[in-house]
Amino acid sequence: MFATSLKCTACARSYPLGEHYACDSCNGVLEVTYDYQAIGSKPIAETLPEPGFNIWRYRNLLPVRDEAAMVSLLEGGTPLVKSTNLATDYEIENLYLKDETRNPSGAFKDRPIAVAVSKARELGFGTVVTASSGNGAASLAIYAAKARMRCIIFVPETTPMGKVAQATVSGATIVKVRGDYSNSFRMAKETAEHFHWMNVTTTFLNPYSFEGDKTVAYELYRQFGGDVPDWVVIPAGAGPLVYGIHKGFLEMRRLGLTDALPRMVAVQAEGCKPIARAFENGTDVSAWERVETVASAIADPLRGYEKDGQLVVRTLKANGGLALAVPDDEILAAMDDLGKKEGIYAEPGAAASIAALKRMIAADSVRSD
Amino acid sequence: MFATSLKCTACARSYPLGEHYACDSCNGVLEVTYDYQAIGSKPIAETLPEPGFNIWRYRNLLPVRDEAAMVSLLEGGTPLVKSTNLATDYEIENLYLKDETRNPSGAFKDRPIAVAVSKARELGFGTVVTASSGNGAASLAIYAAKARMRCIIFVPETTPMGKVAQATVSGATIVKVRGDYSNSFRMAKETAEHFHWMNVTTTFLNPYSFEGDKTVAYELYRQFGGDVPDWVVIPAGAGPLVYGIHKGFLEMRRLGLTDALPRMVAVQAEGCKPIARAFENGTDVSAWERVETVASAIADPLRGYEKDGQLVVRTLKANGGLALAVPDDEILAAMDDLGKKEGIYAEPGAAASIAALKRMIAADSVRSD
Repeated sequence: MFATSLKCTACARSYPLGEHYACDSCNGVLEVTYDYQAIGSKPIAETLPEPGFNIWRYRNLLPVRDEAAMVSLLEGGTPLVKSTNLATDYEIENLYLKDETRNPSGAFKDRPIAVAVSKARELGFGTVVTASSGNGAASLAIYAAKARMRCIIFVPETTPMGKVAQATVSGATIVKVRGDYSNSFRMAKETAEHFHWMNVTTTFLNPYSFEGDKTVAYELYRQFGGDVPDWVVIPAGAGPLVYGIHKGFLEMRRLGLTDALPRMVAVQAEGCKPIARAFENGTDVSAWERVETVASAIADPLRGYEKDGQLVVRTLKANGGLALAVPDDEILAAMDDLGKKEGIYAEPGAAASIAALKRMIAADSVRSD
Repeated sequence: MFATSLKCTACARSYPLGEHYACDSCNGVLEVTYDYQAIGSKPIAETLPEPGFNIWRYRNLLPVRDEAAMVSLLEGGTPLVKSTNLATDYEIENLYLKDETRNPSGAFKDRPIAVAVSKARELGFGTVVTASSGNGAASLAIYAAKARMRCIIFVPETTPMGKVAQATVSGATIVKVRGDYSNSFRMAKETAEHFHWMNVTTTFLNPYSFEGDKTVAYELYRQFGGDVPDWVVIPAGAGPLVYGIHKGFLEMRRLGLTDALPRMVAVQAEGCKPIARAFENGTDVSAWERVETVASAIADPLRGYEKDGQLVVRTLKANGGLALAVPDDEILAAMDDLGKKEGIYAEPGAAASIAALKRMIAADSVRSD
């Protein structure tokens, strides 16, 4: 393992690689840093037995030391499907879809959860807890099952039971919490602190979790044959996936693997867009008042952790990226397009990225090639 | 392409690689044969751009000539997960789970459907039709969407609408048919004949479809590092997956890649076990009278195509394999075991294989190592 410490993204203060959820002095988001110089001379990917294309291929850049602690259902390594029909219809030449439904639980969440649960096990925790709008619940439940750990999940009361069915099958305890996602977030946080359980909520709270997200960047680099795309369009709730993928590209640049950095696009729904609002208005991120969207997976009002959104806005501005919001009707149309034209069955939160792309094409923000 | 012809599995009569669903002279099941001698000097796997682990890696052993006709959502190449907890609890050392949920539509059906739809396109068809109890419907719909072909699906009226939701999203036309799966099968057959549509029903009807199934064998060979497992335990409706995987291993033996052949186990539900009944009683396969099981995905009474079951029984007897049936309560317990102990969310049809394995262990048919 080359991970060295946790570092505050705001004040740069350092902490050892233990259980920390925020900077003690400024409450900033923590992230894992590595001894990049030591990694420099080594390939970032382990040569796993073929076909070992999963996140642990990149274990040199993951913060888990103890191999016995690693919990894996062979997550990641998802296919990059070249769009044929959508690309033609949208008059864009090179459109690729990273099919994250091909993960163990059916969503990208398995990347951050696999890393966070492995770290929890390495740190000696027996219970993991998360707040989730559904996908994180399904994911955490299966990793906790595989790790034989106890698993407690807080979901907003409006979460469709179908979305937590998977978690129930894997033996997780589901607790419904009144109100929106931010309430569940707070409940998970307080409960974890009180009982000293590991909180693996996949916002920016757990600094190990978004290390899993960044593996998307390494995989894209490999799947594009050592090149990086011009744009990466990403659905965003609190935005750790956006931040994580960007971190992955930054690390590859630091390691001399690429000069170019793709521009990131954080996509939110009109009915819950604290990040897009702040980005557009040039203001600080403030909590979203009233969540109203079909895209529940990306509907995070950020109440109580507005700073997370702030970090994403800052990252996008520095990166030359964008944050934008799309209305529900365009999200549903994009779902339909993905299903009917590409054969991909996406949920609204995921389809939002295609709705955003369509807007970017209409606004000429993206070149046809 | 090294495929040379279709050959009757009963009377050995040959046909060109066109649209044929059964032997004209004896009504036997047709299968694709290859010029194995010409393949002999070549690797069976194409060197695809990394990480190109999907069924088309094995295109030398697939019956599609025209590359432009190939329809792919990067199916196959599914992970082989080493069981930890189930293996421990069942006191068996080397248990591996081939996680077919990691296919584009969430089931192994994408293998046969990808090949059959590609062949339909190569043969110039614009419409594909299938009978399905749900999984085949979800699969065909997405491949037809990607291929921009028309898609018509016959499902038993009892099929849960949730199971065909995916197909609807991808624009397929769903037709509900009274009675059990065999009725839907007959409707698909007659409609396809009448309108001259390609019938890609994934029983033994379409000889190209189970060529997709056999890629599981090649992948296992690769994932076991050039070795083959002792047993392969497979859920079975009509049994093309059992037959297909066996064909894959036979071909590898023929090509000198392995001496050993794994023993196949065809698993059915007690409430619909025409193959297991015939295997146990040493009788011919007769149609199952009344389907009564939660495992709808493997509930095929074989009425009107009993010969398909016959082919599976013959294959298992020659292979030293087994056919066995498990009751619903054991299937549900196995589902629970998979969810709670391995973090795999399996439907009853898939979990039946674990219920069967448990019985095999109890009966000492399988060694602990």
